[in-house]
Amino acid sequence: MDIAVYMADVGQQARKAATAVARSTTAVRNQALLATAEALDASRNELAAANARDLEHGRSSGLDDAMLDRLELTPARIDAMIEGLRQVASLPDPIGEITDMTYRPSGIQVGRMRVPLGVIGIIYESRPNVTVEAASLCLKSGNATILRGGSEAIHSNQAIAECLARGLSDAGLPGNAVQVIKTTDRAAVGELITMPRFVDVIVPRGGKGLIERISRDARVPVIKHLDGICHVYIDSHADPEKALAVALNSKTQRYGTCNTMETLLVDQEIASDILPLLAEAFREKGVELRGCEQTVQILPDVAAATEEDWATEYLAPILAVKVVDGLDGAIAHINCYSSQHTDSIITENFTRARRFLTEVDSASVMVNASTRFADGFEYGLGAEIGISTDKIHARGPVGLEGLTSQKYVVFGDGHIRT
Amino acid sequence: MDIAVYMADVGQQARKAATAVARSTTAVRNQALLATAEALDASRNELAAANARDLEHGRSSGLDDAMLDRLELTPARIDAMIEGLRQVASLPDPIGEITDMTYRPSGIQVGRMRVPLGVIGIIYESRPNVTVEAASLCLKSGNATILRGGSEAIHSNQAIAECLARGLSDAGLPGNAVQVIKTTDRAAVGELITMPRFVDVIVPRGGKGLIERISRDARVPVIKHLDGICHVYIDSHADPEKALAVALNSKTQRYGTCNTMETLLVDQEIASDILPLLAEAFREKGVELRGCEQTVQILPDVAAATEEDWATEYLAPILAVKVVDGLDGAIAHINCYSSQHTDSIITENFTRARRFLTEVDSASVMVNASTRFADGFEYGLGAEIGISTDKIHARGPVGLEGLTSQKYVVFGDGHIRT
Repeated sequence: MDIAVYMADVGQQARKAATAVARSTTAVRNQALLATAEALDASRNELAAANARDLEHGRSSGLDDAMLDRLELTPARIDAMIEGLRQVASLPDPIGEITDMTYRPSGIQVGRMRVPLGVIGIIYESRPNVTVEAASLCLKSGNATILRGGSEAIHSNQAIAECLARGLSDAGLPGNAVQVIKTTDRAAVGELITMPRFVDVIVPRGGKGLIERISRDARVPVIKHLDGICHVYIDSHADPEKALAVALNSKTQRYGTCNTMETLLVDQEIASDILPLLAEAFREKGVELRGCEQTVQILPDVAAATEEDWATEYLAPILAVKVVDGLDGAIAHINCYSSQHTDSIITENFTRARRFLTEVDSASVMVNASTRFADGFEYGLGAEIGISTDKIHARGPVGLEGLTSQKYVVFGDGHIRT
Repeated sequence: MDIAVYMADVGQQARKAATAVARSTTAVRNQALLATAEALDASRNELAAANARDLEHGRSSGLDDAMLDRLELTPARIDAMIEGLRQVASLPDPIGEITDMTYRPSGIQVGRMRVPLGVIGIIYESRPNVTVEAASLCLKSGNATILRGGSEAIHSNQAIAECLARGLSDAGLPGNAVQVIKTTDRAAVGELITMPRFVDVIVPRGGKGLIERISRDARVPVIKHLDGICHVYIDSHADPEKALAVALNSKTQRYGTCNTMETLLVDQEIASDILPLLAEAFREKGVELRGCEQTVQILPDVAAATEEDWATEYLAPILAVKVVDGLDGAIAHINCYSSQHTDSIITENFTRARRFLTEVDSASVMVNASTRFADGFEYGLGAEIGISTDKIHARGPVGLEGLTSQKYVVFGDGHIRT
């Protein structure tokens, strides 16, 4: 197979289908989502068989247990895919909304209409349920999608693709509105990210290495999510109970997520009072602390942090702890080491909260709340295609709106410019 | 001079200054704009002298008259720069606006705060007044700026840069908040567009060749404006008077602008009635018509258009004319040949207007209005850094809002995720 020819054809088909999807009504797109859910439910045997092939091949080629776990389509995961499709169908349709319509002195009316982006390319790793999740969000927001999952999930993804095709067909939408790439050749990714004629935006989902590589080589815009080095700063005016609860929750509610706290900052005015309490709480949870010089003076059992610790996303029960010189010290540290994902201040002081919100340059800034809230569902977006650490287009959790754009609409009555 | 070292230093200084600008109050940024206006007013002699050097050098190196005209800083153009600064100062400050603040079921409040992008790189050609215009919009929206103007304007731009530095200093802002690159070496552009650590977005202003080159080589997001192949479609249900007025205005109010109509589409049902009237009106204005086969049948004097005409941005008194098979034919032609800039339908039919608005995938879609209205000032943006033909981030005329982003703000009272 000539990959460049194949991908150009996929792109061309997607572009064509995108027009049909963009013109389709809310009801039609919802019908496609619900019919896909039914097709998945009716295809449990086929899905299990395809997934078994992937798992077998994965085991024989030496995939580790974590990878095999992500690859597996258990009945519960199929249930979750079906439920996810129904949820996306029930979300409000973002497309077509006209806002800010106002009269201008010239007499024309000017407003903005929300429209799909067009064709969205999704590149992800082994989890086959991402196929349904990403396709459903793109379809709901009126876009065509080209999906490129990990090669180890190729049979599972093709089985899911068949269900998507049946769902689209049931609603009278072109099957090419969602295309799952049929080859495992890595050259397909290289083509997908360099076809601005056919692809409007790329959303990579996976490890930092994958995302950096794609961002570097892409010739189309990328909505990207790099690392989450999130901070909680406990101010001297913090309520100690809230501080303990939020710090503990930000670190220990889940260790492996991007919105987990990786560095705890403590105001030096209260460090000797609160650090022993925090250390005790984290010890109970089995979290290893790594402290700055001042932290180690207060907590002699704690190992010394190195410069590298401040810049590390552990995704593990390890926490870097630093004593800082008040709010200025905290903001300076965060704006130097934060990955601009999510940072939270714990304080009862209005002025300090206000300064933190303004001066911390991160996608989510919080007051007296756990960093773990930085999530599309918790924010009320209804769904999440990813969390953007970019500043352009979409910042923070990206829901349906991030897969759309706004065009200007102008109404006149034969108006001309003079 | 080692260009890479110099540009990295410029970038680092800009990044540092961006923090100070982002934290500055509305009043301080406005003061910097007004003080720059005063500095320009007080430096008319220095500006004239610097500009004379550029003009002299331009003449001796054989620049054409159009180029020399764009390069010239007449007293009227200095007046316009001063007036522009005052106007930007009087615009509302977009920064810090918090919107959509709502309670979530978890009890947290979530909203969005408008924030600067950070560091904006502007690359433009010979007109030195762009230096002031671009710098003022970036500063107003809380960003630091790195400006790279055409090498033929280097002395004029440096003289303007001194006025900007005085304005910034007067307001207590760091001088590096606006940096005008001091070298004419083209390698500086290559560095500027490949420093994602220091530059958040590039706005190129100039010809299509420049913009395509920059988009291709950039490693940071580009807000780009390619060509404007704009259409007016006269539907069979159009009011003929409005149709004539809008078509004439869209083409002839100015020939050289991106929102000028380049192709006129006419519904075949009314082609033989309205084309002779249109031809007469355009003949009076000295506009050359190039028609499709059916057009030439109705207007035998008109030259035949080639395939290339449909894809050409003339920027001249030339107009391509095509008879189409109703609304479907018009939409098909537009979505094939339009540069997705601005397209307008002339019709009294509600359903056709509604379909045109939905199905034409352009940054501005209009009903019964001249394409010449596609402009930041006409749309009420107060200012315009450019017109984006991209879909991501900003589409259509880009004002101050396009130079900003939104971050999430979360308020809690010790809330944790369960």
